Amino acid sequence: MSSIAFAAKVSLNPENMALIAAEIGGTPDAWQVDEIGDGNVNMIFRLAGPRGQLLIKQAVPYLRCVGESWPLSLRRNFFERKALEAHATFAPEYLPRVLAFDEASASMVMEFLGDHIILRKGVMQGVRYPKFAEHITDYMAKTLFFTSDLYLSAAQKKTQMQLFCENVDLCKITEDLIFTDPYRVAEQNRWTTPELDRVARTFAEDGELKVAITALKAKFLTSAEALIHGDLHTGSIMVNQHETKVIDPEFAFYGPMGFDVGLLLANFFLAYYSQAGLGGNPVEYEEWLLEQAEEIWTKFERKFSALWEERLDGDYLPARLLTPETRVGVITRVRADYLARLFDDSLGFAATEMIRRILGLAHVADLDAIADKKARALSEMRALRAARELLVNHARYRDISQTLELIRAQRAWTPE
Amino acid sequence: MSSIAFAAKVSLNPENMALIAAEIGGTPDAWQVDEIGDGNVNMIFRLAGPRGQLLIKQAVPYLRCVGESWPLSLRRNFFERKALEAHATFAPEYLPRVLAFDEASASMVMEFLGDHIILRKGVMQGVRYPKFAEHITDYMAKTLFFTSDLYLSAAQKKTQMQLFCENVDLCKITEDLIFTDPYRVAEQNRWTTPELDRVARTFAEDGELKVAITALKAKFLTSAEALIHGDLHTGSIMVNQHETKVIDPEFAFYGPMGFDVGLLLANFFLAYYSQAGLGGNPVEYEEWLLEQAEEIWTKFERKFSALWEERLDGDYLPARLLTPETRVGVITRVRADYLARLFDDSLGFAATEMIRRILGLAHVADLDAIADKKARALSEMRALRAARELLVNHARYRDISQTLELIRAQRAWTPE
Repeated sequence: MSSIAFAAKVSLNPENMALIAAEIGGTPDAWQVDEIGDGNVNMIFRLAGPRGQLLIKQAVPYLRCVGESWPLSLRRNFFERKALEAHATFAPEYLPRVLAFDEASASMVMEFLGDHIILRKGVMQGVRYPKFAEHITDYMAKTLFFTSDLYLSAAQKKTQMQLFCENVDLCKITEDLIFTDPYRVAEQNRWTTPELDRVARTFAEDGELKVAITALKAKFLTSAEALIHGDLHTGSIMVNQHETKVIDPEFAFYGPMGFDVGLLLANFFLAYYSQAGLGGNPVEYEEWLLEQAEEIWTKFERKFSALWEERLDGDYLPARLLTPETRVGVITRVRADYLARLFDDSLGFAATEMIRRILGLAHVADLDAIADKKARALSEMRALRAARELLVNHARYRDISQTLELIRAQRAWTPE
Repeated sequence: MSSIAFAAKVSLNPENMALIAAEIGGTPDAWQVDEIGDGNVNMIFRLAGPRGQLLIKQAVPYLRCVGESWPLSLRRNFFERKALEAHATFAPEYLPRVLAFDEASASMVMEFLGDHIILRKGVMQGVRYPKFAEHITDYMAKTLFFTSDLYLSAAQKKTQMQLFCENVDLCKITEDLIFTDPYRVAEQNRWTTPELDRVARTFAEDGELKVAITALKAKFLTSAEALIHGDLHTGSIMVNQHETKVIDPEFAFYGPMGFDVGLLLANFFLAYYSQAGLGGNPVEYEEWLLEQAEEIWTKFERKFSALWEERLDGDYLPARLLTPETRVGVITRVRADYLARLFDDSLGFAATEMIRRILGLAHVADLDAIADKKARALSEMRALRAARELLVNHARYRDISQTLELIRAQRAWTPE
């Protein structure tokens, strides 16, 4: 794709063109442009000049993975930018640098993360990222804590919340694709057929699942806890051995914290179940994946708790409510209740993510890449069995070890 | 107060003056004006002309019951108007008619409810209102159901929610006066002294209460269920034998439904405990007050449930999720869970209202009017004992009968 084709596609304003030129050198007619996106939502271009590269992310007025039949507001670009700004206040080291916004073309010019790869791809190749758990839990603890009532005044929080109340198109995708379609007969659902035909039908007829998914959807609709990323799967994270960058927060809104934590956990569980089918990686890699899930929760919990010690400045539990005698006891108890509830939410949301990635519209490459259909179906069935149990009974799983026992037990399942 | 004084105070624009003239007849210089308000928040004027009367409600830039030291946005008038409009879509018969808004003077011109009295005053006089429970539960069921995700799409709800995200000044009053100050040593707190000195001190040092109040405050801060009235006590309701009108929704925002239901229940419990001290009313009137509390819950629950049958049109539980086989079972179970949780929330919020009306800044006339200080303290202690139990253990009270047993049991309490 030539630069002329690029200009025809993404026509940036002159100021932004000048910014780009200052960054990557050269002139527009000499820039190398490649469309590199494989995302479900936007167009992604790499722009290379003599001195460097940049990434251009452009919104199209429909859901890319479905097509023009699913219209989508171009404003998601605006919300992505606002979320990046808000999160960068607290965790800039885990976010790509943004060079410019170009409102007219609904595009953003950003740092090109050439030394990083999508975490999901790395995981499929069996690569270990020794700093990942540390980084991602730092990112989650900071972005969730500092945008919540724990840190902000109610007025500050509502100013932010008000802005993201408009991000309804993207929330609607989640409401439909995660919380509704996998539990009904929906044209857009897809699954490994015929192996999973029976279970897909069973899920669509299962009253207990419909009750459980409704309770979780209710939290998604009403629980305005923090400015969440809203789509924190392993495809929204770029990594190398030293760095971790979280990308694509266009689904951001004020929602339940457990949605971010749960999606991330779910993607490690899915990666774990995919290993047997994918082959190629040493068996110890499965254990590394579960260790990551364990650390995601334990390190997150520790860091989030530490922030209560240091920065409990919000209206949630104001210092003036506490006395010297009650301070430690009350904070300890409130925090324990909070984290137990957050863990429970996270497990519930993890289950919804696992299910929708197997029976819904948008799958994960980890499982889709399993060439042998029977092996793929076996990995998927194991994941679905664990997810169904978690969806219905998440409240019974009180800690991450107990949860991992379930995940491991279903790994051993084979059809009779 | 002459019309000149009125014009100096509330200078309405010419269009609104003409509207008023068309309604009450005569000319401004002949209108009779009286300041009649005894509310905590605004100035209230009655405007009388040869053909009728109107009410003018004007916001002042501070909290009226405290003074200029507590500044308050004049925009509360705007939110009151928006809440009245939203609720009038679904329950107009229970709201005063609004003639005009006058933005420059931060005032509203409304129907003067000359045939109605404030419910609290009627209750203090021992008057029964045979239609009240029917009316108020109709109002609550409709305003709460139709502004929630049960009826609205997520996008529709968030449009409304966005607007009320700005009503932070009024929410802050609730956050401070209901959810914080009664549980700490706060200059603005007041109580019957010295009789309640000890219990006030105990409440301010009680870690268990601080934990319980924080859990309820969390719901107030994060649970965006419906456009609630936000201050639904018996002083916000005007009644006669035939009609019920809910006034003063300037505290409206997207919050937990149980806050409205709970405040109303609490005010009947407070009225009940006040009877022994107030004297003058027959003892059977106490039972009538508890019957009202019982009917407030049971009729509300029945009407709210009926709306699920008829108008479950929102994104909460979309029809497409259900199959002919699962429909009845799933709706029944989800609704039962929903109402059990809503009842629990309501009891918790009822407890907070009872406590803040005895130990906080803003009291209720029912108790304040008890001239004998020892008798007043006894009524208040009984209410506080019931409220403390409900605040800490609301989850143990599974239905209204069991709750009323607690309320009755504490009525019998006397100091050793």
